[in-house]
Amino acid sequence: MNNIQSRKKDVKAMASKLGFAEYQENNACKRTASLPESQKQSPKIVSLEEAIKRTGLKDGMTISFHHHFRGGDKVINMVMAKIAEMGFKNLHLAASSLIDVHKPLIEHIKNGVVTRISTSGLRGDLAEEISRGLMKEPVIFRSHGGRAAAIANGDLKIDVAFLGTCSSDAAGNSCGYSRSENAKSKCGSLGYALVDAQYADKVVVITEDLVNYPNTPNSISEDNVDYVVVVDSIGDPTKISVGAIRDSKNPRDLLIAKTAAKVIINGGYLKDGFSIQTGTGGAALAVVKYIRESMIEQNIKASFALGGITSHMVKLHEEGLIERLLDVQSFDIGAAESLVNNEYHKEISGTEYASYFQKGSAVHSLDMVILSALEVDVNFNVNVLVGSNGVIRGAIGGHPDTSAEAAMSIIVCPLLRGRIPCVVNEVTTLITPGTGIDVVVTDFGIAVNPKRPELAERLSKAGLNIVTMEYLRDKALSISGTPEALPFGDKVVGVVMNRDGSVMDVINNVVDAK
Amino acid sequence: MNNIQSRKKDVKAMASKLGFAEYQENNACKRTASLPESQKQSPKIVSLEEAIKRTGLKDGMTISFHHHFRGGDKVINMVMAKIAEMGFKNLHLAASSLIDVHKPLIEHIKNGVVTRISTSGLRGDLAEEISRGLMKEPVIFRSHGGRAAAIANGDLKIDVAFLGTCSSDAAGNSCGYSRSENAKSKCGSLGYALVDAQYADKVVVITEDLVNYPNTPNSISEDNVDYVVVVDSIGDPTKISVGAIRDSKNPRDLLIAKTAAKVIINGGYLKDGFSIQTGTGGAALAVVKYIRESMIEQNIKASFALGGITSHMVKLHEEGLIERLLDVQSFDIGAAESLVNNEYHKEISGTEYASYFQKGSAVHSLDMVILSALEVDVNFNVNVLVGSNGVIRGAIGGHPDTSAEAAMSIIVCPLLRGRIPCVVNEVTTLITPGTGIDVVVTDFGIAVNPKRPELAERLSKAGLNIVTMEYLRDKALSISGTPEALPFGDKVVGVVMNRDGSVMDVINNVVDAK
Repeated sequence: MNNIQSRKKDVKAMASKLGFAEYQENNACKRTASLPESQKQSPKIVSLEEAIKRTGLKDGMTISFHHHFRGGDKVINMVMAKIAEMGFKNLHLAASSLIDVHKPLIEHIKNGVVTRISTSGLRGDLAEEISRGLMKEPVIFRSHGGRAAAIANGDLKIDVAFLGTCSSDAAGNSCGYSRSENAKSKCGSLGYALVDAQYADKVVVITEDLVNYPNTPNSISEDNVDYVVVVDSIGDPTKISVGAIRDSKNPRDLLIAKTAAKVIINGGYLKDGFSIQTGTGGAALAVVKYIRESMIEQNIKASFALGGITSHMVKLHEEGLIERLLDVQSFDIGAAESLVNNEYHKEISGTEYASYFQKGSAVHSLDMVILSALEVDVNFNVNVLVGSNGVIRGAIGGHPDTSAEAAMSIIVCPLLRGRIPCVVNEVTTLITPGTGIDVVVTDFGIAVNPKRPELAERLSKAGLNIVTMEYLRDKALSISGTPEALPFGDKVVGVVMNRDGSVMDVINNVVDAK
Repeated sequence: MNNIQSRKKDVKAMASKLGFAEYQENNACKRTASLPESQKQSPKIVSLEEAIKRTGLKDGMTISFHHHFRGGDKVINMVMAKIAEMGFKNLHLAASSLIDVHKPLIEHIKNGVVTRISTSGLRGDLAEEISRGLMKEPVIFRSHGGRAAAIANGDLKIDVAFLGTCSSDAAGNSCGYSRSENAKSKCGSLGYALVDAQYADKVVVITEDLVNYPNTPNSISEDNVDYVVVVDSIGDPTKISVGAIRDSKNPRDLLIAKTAAKVIINGGYLKDGFSIQTGTGGAALAVVKYIRESMIEQNIKASFALGGITSHMVKLHEEGLIERLLDVQSFDIGAAESLVNNEYHKEISGTEYASYFQKGSAVHSLDMVILSALEVDVNFNVNVLVGSNGVIRGAIGGHPDTSAEAAMSIIVCPLLRGRIPCVVNEVTTLITPGTGIDVVVTDFGIAVNPKRPELAERLSKAGLNIVTMEYLRDKALSISGTPEALPFGDKVVGVVMNRDGSVMDVINNVVDAK
């Protein structure tokens, strides 16, 4: 017969058998305040200093940030100033990327607050200083997909993520825009930050617009958020589309873009249902403008555009020429606005975008990608990170992720920039292996990877000027003269990780640059 | 000087220092087929049998399913028939819930294909047989939030999840509806399945509508999907809202619902920005109909409705009375359709809904929940799983998750069903501890938990008939007479887990029921 006594015995025995605890009645009083009252006193809402304390941050730990505001980001400098003030040392700063605006990190490095950096890119004074040997430990450079994979597999373990969001409720439901009347700014997709939110031990959301619960639709979810810090401003959206992702009016860029458009139109992949991504750089971004007409003429619609999404892509989408937008990073305010208002403009995480290790990512389905380069060599290897003077001045981004997977990967690149050759015998730093690059479009001709003879044939038949990489290299050298040896020292200041988590190249310090 | 030789040496040294592999050039040819061609031959698309083989399923493993089609589900029976045919034995079946339609599991249990079950509920012949001792191992019952927590913390490790989806692309981007012209059915939210998709070692999506890539917006993402199996039909949506979630026309249910509405209106939580959830059962579902008028009169808008979302909730949302819908399970086709078309009707995962262990879930912000009961006892403990005849006939659902967290948890329950008392001295099986229950509404009066004197006072002042649980128990007994002792045997056939992962109660076999 079942009665209280026998039941209690059975529970104990069964808990023991199953290896679980036995239930203990919890007499703690539950919340009785109503939501409109209680959400204003949410225990998650604390000051930045309090949030840092409560995360249990310790010297030597890894902290992370996203760069969705690019040149307009205010979060990294704000948080690092507070962390420095609080006396932390020896931190590993793991950002999705670092830009000119993060120059104050130089002082934090000099003061020992930051001793290790992982990032996709470095620019400006910070990059210059690091290239000259500012840090003892080399900076670890990863692609966006490589970073997502490294975070998922534990190669890059994040202790505390500080994630700027344009709106959040008291529980941490957040996104890169706000639908409230107090909306301040928008950066659109928080794609890279979603990976940090999922995997970091502690997650601090830093928001400029605290809205009522629930802040849906949202991208970061409360089940991943420990603390919510409210600040005046997390970023200046007008500075998202400056630098590498501003629109080019340079006639040479536009010429190269037009030629790349011909490659796309004749390469065999511009068919109904195709997919496309354009990387940063004026010529790459401009390409979509030039394929639009062919798409209309031939009644071809793209199934999706991927990656950093621009207003150009949004326009084609709104015209019905691109069915879906998969947005890991909104490259301008127009793209961010579209993400807010358009259900077929979807925010995707860095993992969904390009992770090497997960079960699938969008780059697997990509037909064409158009990417820039600082240098490309006779083996089609590409460098997008280190300038021809040896100084770090760029970002890996999704370059190796997309080119390794797209059916046709196109590099757009002038033969020379000023008197500096962009087509070289060997890239200064290996960022994207040539095995993934199919076509190089320059202002002096188009080279096709010998592994793709059928592609070369299609382009030749279309009357395009197909040359060899060696021809382009020699042409560049004939104009520039043999470049001087680069002034590298013996210290390794950067390590380039392949997207599969292996070490692909190292970057040495420059001893006499600037 | 940096040259090829020195660089290769540095890479090797740095890889060794960092503990990473050294990059090896990958000369494998990459995909050259365009997306419109390649997606038809995606390596993820296989037959059900092939998918089962490739997952590496082995005897003794744990397989999981969702129950978003409830009584219309076809996936569990389909997959289990194939698994049985393939000769697997000794499997642990971990479903989000099991319903009458899963009766064929009886044979699979008898044949040793399934030897362990974890679920939120059991009904029909399967429940009857299990109550009578069909299985050697007890069934483990968890709440929806408890299941999400157990999956996340490893208490419930899923080897292979078989997840039915109403549309999927070749990569596995899936959801509980389809926007294609070949759409067959919709179940709306896949909330419970999202947890399986995230944590299971292998994930097989079983879809009835294979659509072009990318199937956005989606809920299950390709980065979590190993295989995609295309079948004729995964479920009958007309059978979602039968049984426990059909609309009641029973006058007693409606009387109780009206009384509960008065409790809501006078309980102190019906204020602008409040939040609400209704559980299964006719009276609970009907409550929202009766608070609508008060909301309009007093110009009160709810911030959100949570949980199993019904067409009633959708209607209030569309009228502007509820700002957001957080939908872990669409309780009818109207709710499913709203989820497809309305950006403020958001699908949330079982984790986001109610997980005990994560950093936050929506139940934390819930003001009011209205829930049914099979039995409630003088200590406010509730049983929603085991009938008064000792036979399992229900589901835990989100009952303990919501009541433990909501500021005012209301049980709606008749004093007797037929001649069976529903208010008892001690519940047959403890599912929801009385510490979380604030009000019990019956057709013979309203009892308020002595822990909430201020609530009792507010309701008394409003003229409501406040009684004690002891009064209700005695009243029930006076009508029914003292019930006979339940015919329990000594075998434990079910274990009830608390949402915190501890063993709360056990269910013994019935020896003479039916």
